[in-house]
Amino acid sequence: MKDLLTLKELSVDEIQSILDLALDCEKGKYDNFLKDEIIANCFFEPSTRTQYSFNTAELRLGMKPLSFNPAGSSLNKGESFYDTIKTFESFGISGIVIRDVHDRYYEDIRHLDFHILNAGDGAGDHPSQSLLDLLTIRKEYGKFEGLKIAIVGDISHSRVAHTNIEVMERLGMECFVSGPEEYREEGYNFIDFDKAVEEMDIIMLLRVQHERHKEKMKTSLEDYNRDYGLNMDRVNKMKDHAIIMHPAPFNRGVEINDDVVECDKSRIFTQITNGVLVRMAMLLVTVGGVKC
Amino acid sequence: MKDLLTLKELSVDEIQSILDLALDCEKGKYDNFLKDEIIANCFFEPSTRTQYSFNTAELRLGMKPLSFNPAGSSLNKGESFYDTIKTFESFGISGIVIRDVHDRYYEDIRHLDFHILNAGDGAGDHPSQSLLDLLTIRKEYGKFEGLKIAIVGDISHSRVAHTNIEVMERLGMECFVSGPEEYREEGYNFIDFDKAVEEMDIIMLLRVQHERHKEKMKTSLEDYNRDYGLNMDRVNKMKDHAIIMHPAPFNRGVEINDDVVECDKSRIFTQITNGVLVRMAMLLVTVGGVKC
Amino acid sequence: MKDLLTLKELSVDEIQSILDLALDCEKGKYDNFLKDEIIANCFFEPSTRTQYSFNTAELRLGMKPLSFNPAGSSLNKGESFYDTIKTFESFGISGIVIRDVHDRYYEDIRHLDFHILNAGDGAGDHPSQSLLDLLTIRKEYGKFEGLKIAIVGDISHSRVAHTNIEVMERLGMECFVSGPEEYREEGYNFIDFDKAVEEMDIIMLLRVQHERHKEKMKTSLEDYNRDYGLNMDRVNKMKDHAIIMHPAPFNRGVEINDDVVECDKSRIFTQITNGVLVRMAMLLVTVGGVKC
Repeated sequence: MKDLLTLKELSVDEIQSILDLALDCEKGKYDNFLKDEIIANCFFEPSTRTQYSFNTAELRLGMKPLSFNPAGSSLNKGESFYDTIKTFESFGISGIVIRDVHDRYYEDIRHLDFHILNAGDGAGDHPSQSLLDLLTIRKEYGKFEGLKIAIVGDISHSRVAHTNIEVMERLGMECFVSGPEEYREEGYNFIDFDKAVEEMDIIMLLRVQHERHKEKMKTSLEDYNRDYGLNMDRVNKMKDHAIIMHPAPFNRGVEINDDVVECDKSRIFTQITNGVLVRMAMLLVTVGGVKC
Repeated sequence: MKDLLTLKELSVDEIQSILDLALDCEKGKYDNFLKDEIIANCFFEPSTRTQYSFNTAELRLGMKPLSFNPAGSSLNKGESFYDTIKTFESFGISGIVIRDVHDRYYEDIRHLDFHILNAGDGAGDHPSQSLLDLLTIRKEYGKFEGLKIAIVGDISHSRVAHTNIEVMERLGMECFVSGPEEYREEGYNFIDFDKAVEEMDIIMLLRVQHERHKEKMKTSLEDYNRDYGLNMDRVNKMKDHAIIMHPAPFNRGVEINDDVVECDKSRIFTQITNGVLVRMAMLLVTVGGVKC
Repeated sequence: MKDLLTLKELSVDEIQSILDLALDCEKGKYDNFLKDEIIANCFFEPSTRTQYSFNTAELRLGMKPLSFNPAGSSLNKGESFYDTIKTFESFGISGIVIRDVHDRYYEDIRHLDFHILNAGDGAGDHPSQSLLDLLTIRKEYGKFEGLKIAIVGDISHSRVAHTNIEVMERLGMECFVSGPEEYREEGYNFIDFDKAVEEMDIIMLLRVQHERHKEKMKTSLEDYNRDYGLNMDRVNKMKDHAIIMHPAPFNRGVEINDDVVECDKSRIFTQITNGVLVRMAMLLVTVGGVKC
């Protein structure tokens, strides 16, 4: 496929194929498969996990990454987003990985003649994050059909929540949301947090975005931790096979307690490992032309 | 050759050889030719095109780039330019690509024992930009002799204008300058802009440097656009075979209108593609020791 | 070995083996020996020499470096040091090179399942700097036993001084310190600077850290230069075979005069060249599993 911008444009079969490919990548089947392909990484928003995970994926595939640093660029001379991306296309490289603050930024550039991979657009999509969440679930349960997940926290601002719920429902999962009233969004099934802890197969926590809400947030961090924070008392009430996920970065002592981060049920760092694999798969189906 | 610092030090034959080499690079003849050579990129001024274009050229040649980020360096501890460059030489690497704000910064370091490629010195030279302009013209017309070019805009601050006019005249081109009175410089042939539009083979626009001139600029941006901006009315008056060039970044709606940027006569993004090729050629004749 | 964090954890034999390995690296014996190993470079403090020297070492070994830029990372979202490093471990990469401002930062992370190389911890250790100093001395004199060195300057804040003296004494060298009273530290042998100049085999200068001391420093820069600055008059009083070292960056005109920096006795830039070799060796004994 030419680009991978949003999972909404992919069928359930295509998504499963990408996950298959990620599992092949885990076995080392595609190491150095894209030797000498040059790929640009353009992160217009700060990022650790997504940026360096894509970077690791590229290196494992034998690609040659070109890392754009917005701070030392002509953006400082007023150059536009479109003109910057069109410049990279003109270099004659294979593709580009982009994160930008604007929703659906990709509409203006998707006609360009190279592969575009969306690493997050504003409060829109974050396809590589959803794919790594799906891979983590599939490796855990071997299926999606009938699994129950609650996504807990700031649903309204979260591209992870939006992207995940849409695709998880298509895959036959039952999705719930939980968290303080101020963060809820219509159209989703709400569930009480303590009920969710006892009944779900997956508890997916979201980050409380301190930096955006400090003054406006009605719930204090202490109240948040008491009412929606995952602590060991709550973990002990989860089903035996149930797991904990979080897209990270997380706030220890707010939505998750210290001793929960690396507890037996936590898959938080496994998600990061899986992130490299799905990003390899994304590069393979776009730049690599691998069928899916 | 050891270094490539200014086209003034190259004969017309050497320049033509570098362009020949760039055309060979276009055919893939030199891909991975400089495998395992380590090259440092030191940009002390912001840059998108030149920096990432050199980077792409290096990767296509199979080189291993080392990208210096001034922000996280010992320049913050007061280390001098000379000592920074001498440090890179001591690493035992093959060469260095440098952009710096000071005219002829290279005089103090050219005795060092590695290859130095100038990626722009203050208001002085910008040899890779001139070479890509020349390659674009040669690919278009197959020759330089007798071609007429007008360079339009802020001539006085432009290293592109200075470097280009010197070498284009040596290659037999007829060079004119145009633009507001405040930007003109003695010693060049002035031509009225609308006359230039009708008579030139090449119209090369320069960027209005908003950020430097905001307060001091006598001509308003609106007046500039009306009197010296390239719009479709003017494009339609150009000769059939004539082309539009711009070193970019450009200001849409100031020196160039939106619909002109990617019109049939525009070679703006072709120039960027050619930039990678000439930079490969520059690395080949220096680090690679290819004769020219 | 798993990690290389402080020379205090290495025996004299292990240190000599690492230096042997560095000499093999000089002969090109290990070029591309660690092909395809991915290594992260995380510098939370500014650095030119150490950062790009490790980077050069990695490239010569054929490794694939991942360069973490703290400025564009989730540290801005409040992510902790531990969680950042644990994230890199989860990527499934071979190792990580870290410089951080906190003494013994590595205690919290050394259980992680990848190789950790310390590139400097606060006022603690700087093992790669000590190793390059040792390599420079060994290449000069062929031995350590009985050599006399004076380290001159801000002993109290210098991780170079602390790390060096501990290991040099174990190797049989006789270590002295010199410099203004305000910088001295108990437990070291003090020597008058002009006496040191005449009697030592090695004069190792330290940087006066302008940026930290500007207001607090009791000695003026002029007085410092007069009393402890190495000028050609003093150089001429040094023993015939004696050499000058400095970890750099240096302040010309303060602890070292302009004409001394590249004089015959100076090994300052040789040290930088040796730095690449010892860092290759460090990567070989950790990531590469080479015995020592």
